[in-house]
Amino acid sequence: MLSQRAATLYRACRGLSQGLSAVGIHQPRHCNRLAAVLINPKYRCYATEVNDEEDFLQPHAALLRSDLNKVKRIVIKLGSAVITREDECGLALGRLGSIVEQVAELQNQGREMIMVTSGAVAFGKQKLRQEAVLSMSMRQNLNSIESGGRPPTLEPRACAAAGQSGLMSLYDAMFLQYGVKTAQILVTKPDFQNEHSRENLRETISELLKLNIIPIVNANDAVAPPPEPDMDLAGVISVKDNDSLAARLASELNSELLVIMSDVDGLYTAPPGMPDSRLLHTYSPDRDQVIIAGKSRVGTGGMDSKVKAATYALARHCSVVICNGCEENAIVNIVKGKKVGTFFTNAVHKGTPVELQAKKAREGSRKLQALSGMHRAAIVNRLADLLLERQADILAANQQDVQEAFAEGMQQSDMARLYLSEQKLETLATGLRQIGTDSVDAVGKVLQRTQMAEGMVLEKISVPIGVLMVIFESRPDALPQVAALSICSGNGLLLKGGKEAKHSNKILFSLVQEAIEPFAPIDTVALVSRREDIADLLHLNQYIDLVVPRGSEELVTRIQQQSQGIPVLGHSEGICHVYVDQDADLEMALHIVKDSKCDYPAACNSMETLLIHKDHRHSLFFDKMCEMLRLQGVTVHAGPKLGQVLKFGPSLAASMKTEYGSLECAIEIVEDLDEAIEHINKFGSSHTDSIVTNNDESAAKFLKMVDSACVFRNASTRFADGYRFGLGAEVGVSTSRIHARGPVGIEGLLTYKYVLTGTGQAASDFSAGKEKFIHERLPLISD
Amino acid sequence: MLSQRAATLYRACRGLSQGLSAVGIHQPRHCNRLAAVLINPKYRCYATEVNDEEDFLQPHAALLRSDLNKVKRIVIKLGSAVITREDECGLALGRLGSIVEQVAELQNQGREMIMVTSGAVAFGKQKLRQEAVLSMSMRQNLNSIESGGRPPTLEPRACAAAGQSGLMSLYDAMFLQYGVKTAQILVTKPDFQNEHSRENLRETISELLKLNIIPIVNANDAVAPPPEPDMDLAGVISVKDNDSLAARLASELNSELLVIMSDVDGLYTAPPGMPDSRLLHTYSPDRDQVIIAGKSRVGTGGMDSKVKAATYALARHCSVVICNGCEENAIVNIVKGKKVGTFFTNAVHKGTPVELQAKKAREGSRKLQALSGMHRAAIVNRLADLLLERQADILAANQQDVQEAFAEGMQQSDMARLYLSEQKLETLATGLRQIGTDSVDAVGKVLQRTQMAEGMVLEKISVPIGVLMVIFESRPDALPQVAALSICSGNGLLLKGGKEAKHSNKILFSLVQEAIEPFAPIDTVALVSRREDIADLLHLNQYIDLVVPRGSEELVTRIQQQSQGIPVLGHSEGICHVYVDQDADLEMALHIVKDSKCDYPAACNSMETLLIHKDHRHSLFFDKMCEMLRLQGVTVHAGPKLGQVLKFGPSLAASMKTEYGSLECAIEIVEDLDEAIEHINKFGSSHTDSIVTNNDESAAKFLKMVDSACVFRNASTRFADGYRFGLGAEVGVSTSRIHARGPVGIEGLLTYKYVLTGTGQAASDFSAGKEKFIHERLPLISD
Repeated sequence: MLSQRAATLYRACRGLSQGLSAVGIHQPRHCNRLAAVLINPKYRCYATEVNDEEDFLQPHAALLRSDLNKVKRIVIKLGSAVITREDECGLALGRLGSIVEQVAELQNQGREMIMVTSGAVAFGKQKLRQEAVLSMSMRQNLNSIESGGRPPTLEPRACAAAGQSGLMSLYDAMFLQYGVKTAQILVTKPDFQNEHSRENLRETISELLKLNIIPIVNANDAVAPPPEPDMDLAGVISVKDNDSLAARLASELNSELLVIMSDVDGLYTAPPGMPDSRLLHTYSPDRDQVIIAGKSRVGTGGMDSKVKAATYALARHCSVVICNGCEENAIVNIVKGKKVGTFFTNAVHKGTPVELQAKKAREGSRKLQALSGMHRAAIVNRLADLLLERQADILAANQQDVQEAFAEGMQQSDMARLYLSEQKLETLATGLRQIGTDSVDAVGKVLQRTQMAEGMVLEKISVPIGVLMVIFESRPDALPQVAALSICSGNGLLLKGGKEAKHSNKILFSLVQEAIEPFAPIDTVALVSRREDIADLLHLNQYIDLVVPRGSEELVTRIQQQSQGIPVLGHSEGICHVYVDQDADLEMALHIVKDSKCDYPAACNSMETLLIHKDHRHSLFFDKMCEMLRLQGVTVHAGPKLGQVLKFGPSLAASMKTEYGSLECAIEIVEDLDEAIEHINKFGSSHTDSIVTNNDESAAKFLKMVDSACVFRNASTRFADGYRFGLGAEVGVSTSRIHARGPVGIEGLLTYKYVLTGTGQAASDFSAGKEKFIHERLPLISD
Repeated sequence: MLSQRAATLYRACRGLSQGLSAVGIHQPRHCNRLAAVLINPKYRCYATEVNDEEDFLQPHAALLRSDLNKVKRIVIKLGSAVITREDECGLALGRLGSIVEQVAELQNQGREMIMVTSGAVAFGKQKLRQEAVLSMSMRQNLNSIESGGRPPTLEPRACAAAGQSGLMSLYDAMFLQYGVKTAQILVTKPDFQNEHSRENLRETISELLKLNIIPIVNANDAVAPPPEPDMDLAGVISVKDNDSLAARLASELNSELLVIMSDVDGLYTAPPGMPDSRLLHTYSPDRDQVIIAGKSRVGTGGMDSKVKAATYALARHCSVVICNGCEENAIVNIVKGKKVGTFFTNAVHKGTPVELQAKKAREGSRKLQALSGMHRAAIVNRLADLLLERQADILAANQQDVQEAFAEGMQQSDMARLYLSEQKLETLATGLRQIGTDSVDAVGKVLQRTQMAEGMVLEKISVPIGVLMVIFESRPDALPQVAALSICSGNGLLLKGGKEAKHSNKILFSLVQEAIEPFAPIDTVALVSRREDIADLLHLNQYIDLVVPRGSEELVTRIQQQSQGIPVLGHSEGICHVYVDQDADLEMALHIVKDSKCDYPAACNSMETLLIHKDHRHSLFFDKMCEMLRLQGVTVHAGPKLGQVLKFGPSLAASMKTEYGSLECAIEIVEDLDEAIEHINKFGSSHTDSIVTNNDESAAKFLKMVDSACVFRNASTRFADGYRFGLGAEVGVSTSRIHARGPVGIEGLLTYKYVLTGTGQAASDFSAGKEKFIHERLPLISD
């Protein structure tokens, strides 16, 4: 009799050789012999109950998604729906290949992968059907075609037997592409209840894993009768069976992660397809409050057995993800911690789930809207007070941010934005009070009044948009400013600040909550802490009405792409122009160009391209302009036309669409005003463009035809700014064309509603001619 | 010596057996013998020059994408980049599997598929590397690890030889999943120039195709020296070689379609990554005008040889698609006519390419904006005249639509919308004239004036949005209305109408062009004829500023998802409520409910849910209301609360979020005003909601707290309409929350710009304290 260890090794080798057997090409000598072995019960593995606690590894602590990259032993369960094509014509090779690629990649990273797979019946069906057709007589064949072409009926067990070898050989051939070996383990459900065979199974698999071999586990359908003899393909390898098999296996083997792949995306709050049905990213069987909004229904699209299996494994310290096997790179992404499928965990969430934040902001916004303008202003005044009262705490938190940013080598100009001072806080407080005072009447203002008919008045009234999400850069003073604008306009707010300012943002945010508390729910304004939450929030168009991303054009584009129906008020680049006209005051031109370019080159409203009328090309003015820019340290590039006429001097501009954002600019010569306008409309970003001219006609044409949010005459482009425009502060500078353009203050955060007051009118009375429309514009009562 | 036919058959069988040989599992008897045959030059296929024109099939007429589903013989060329993983660790099995699935699917549809594949070297490299490591001594192995772990150097030709059998066996095993057999053809470039061998090649492949076998063609790298001995993997099987091989093959075989798959999406207008770089969906080598905007540069990311090969094949009547092999279902989608990759064709486009339409609408919009309001009104007045002058033609075209729609079984209510009459045209003309008159001052209106500082005035001025795209249902009178609103607001316009109204739309559109002609370019307004063009237009955010989809919520959602940064002014469902308050005038309530539900049940502003205060539940009024609805033929459903108290009577409403759009509505009982408001905000669609009450306080609360675009007191919901609101007409009813809410007329199609007139100010003068802001609101000059 073999020793325990030897017996285990023997079983491991047997499993391996069974696996290898399938790969006729690579191991032809095993080809025929072992194909028979596979369905010989003698070599089947048995599982046993193990009660000895020492046999188990230390139970794992509850994991978060972000911990999954540390996971070592992973069980992957593939459902039939993943492996077979939607049209049921054989295997879905694309998906299967991709899964093999991913499993091999993870195995080659040093993890221990175990696969539980369905699909042998599907594989065998295809194989046997051909043979059955070939072995039919021609007459049988013709009869079959006449009777509707029904393919010959195939016995599922025969399909399984025929398919098992082929499926394994395919797995083996595929895994060999990545230098990974596989072994085959066939089990039946009854075997699993035998104590002794369970132990054997565990040891066999452990041994295989030590040898860096992937065990591929399948139900031994050839000998195990299908649960219901008349069920269809999916029923034969009952999903329930393989799910629970995988869960049992995962817990037996102390696996840390079980991935159950099928053709649904995961667990839903309601049956998929129903309104409000939403994929749960995280599910804790023990804690119902994870399911938001009181919805405790769980979609039952064949999910019951999966949830049961997942709960079973989770109770045994194995995290589980139920996901869609058709999703690209699902396995690798799960291990990377990405939000794929539904994650079963007992881990307690840090912080409030984002959906709840959004929902509470919506509820809070209704309360805020119901307040009077005076009360909203009082919140902001209190916030201004708190900024001064808690000055020491704020500056200490900010100091921490500054030190950390310095240690990480943040750029000088970014540091200046991050840094808060007593002076800055004082200016900030003054600004907030101004916003409060100015906005008292902003909400609920009558914008238009129309006498629609006798006894019927239509009013257009300003109302808050609802809930805003503002994503802002690492500039902590933006937080109270944006919060003040949002509160004064009656909007709920979700804030996501740059992570470099996290300590400052945290304390500033707590002050916002403190200021709100006496008047409205504190979660009317919420701080979103994690970057990955943004993508989730962009799906919640039932709670969020407008997204304002402040930052790079790349950020804006990404947000636009991720947004599911929530409008984005984008601030893209600022390619601003100054055009020096034929009739310009040349001293003024020098003054304006100097300010537009050099006052704050990193700002979006600073000049990037200087357009000069051709008449100035050979004047003293041109030389003076170049000299001024040189003295200011501005690197000049020539546009194509200027480049042609210059024999030497500045390098050619790579593109006329460059936002330099530094002491660098392009100069181009234009033939006339029309060419200047055309140039700006073609290469500009519709932000801010200025003409320097004493000619009223030229100015009028420029101001009318230049297609930008801000068009200036005889003024620096730097004036395009919420504060300078008299808006108090700005949520951002919009380069969108609808809703709000240019610097966006309170007004840009409002929309309107139509309020109609009648005396019982019906539309049919008008179409019947009994009543008549008047449509007379009435004077506004206030304003 | 064999006869010609016998020789061909012999070669075909040889190719087949070579293919079969690779499938050791299925055909184990061939296993070892034929692995050697593969690199034996004796069995190689040779190609010959054929000059006899009769040998060619009839050259195919130039194809459009939509013709590709009729294509029978297809050559698929897979580049190394498709077959190997990005990290160069072996084959990309997921992609390869998916491609095999698609090719098999098309073959099983009865098409003739031919594959040209790279990848043998990659395959062999992986195989040989393991063997090399195994055959190294332990010391060599350690040395190799110490010296940075560089893997042993492998000879590319050896890799190719070792890889060829494995690659073929893999293809064969994969294709067998779908019951498809393959055969292997190895060719070298020099062979291809031999006239005799070319003929043999063609006949061999034709024979294989007749036998329903897929020929898999590869360069015989084992015997052909790589072009550059020191080049990397991609260089060994030079992409150029296999591209031109595939093109030669495709033209030799009179294939109708060649798909060249690599890791780029297709042909770009500029190197990918550059601004303005854009994928060309269609490319005609002969006609440069397909490349719009004068850009004739073609991205050169390894594209040269592909374009050369594609041009070669196209000149020989084989359409070509260059696409990304990583794109899901690329091959099947190409054959379905979808816009995947770049389509090389000599076919002449029908109509103007949509990008050109959008660009011209943008240019036209600038001209339109430069006109005076009087001129824009003159266009619309002329259009009104034309509607009456050409009445007979319009009605004849409309009659054609109506007849076709009737033949196709259009519903009665849709027919009513489609149908035009003299009366309708007259009303339409009157409406247009009104729009013209009302809008004369709409553009360029001063909305706000601020004294920013001494000598510096800031004005906020209404301007057109730019270019609109309006997608509207099969209601031809919408075309002149939308055109009029757009023209009067100075916007360019792309129109896409329902196809059922195509004849009517065509003539109405021609009248719009006729009216525009004297004042602005006729293509300021354009008609988009094909539905699939919409997806393309939604990418052109440089030309289109706002999309207004009128129609189902599903349409709106789809447009939102497809839009690449173009805002969508959505009109989703109208779930409108009437709430009968405790203090309502009950006669008035009956009148308003009747009108709201029954006046035009299909309209979005008709009532779907009636909320009744609980005090009315047991009153005569409740019975009267039910009786009135019954008499009007309205099917009533009970909300959950009403359902609980009713012992018998109406069925329960499936959901309180249903838009019935017919003589059907829900009734629900509410405890009080607050519950009514909550119900509406929760289940409504923020469209239009009305309260019937005599209590001013209740009314004020309802009008303030109900979060809808239109909130009414004592008036029917049916008044929410552009005409009834006095806007002349409407582009649609917006349920978006920003920019424009409710019925959208001229004002909703305008945005604003800030115009700043200074006297030479610089921002730095203000920050230095030399100048001070005033920020005083000035009176508006007009209005």
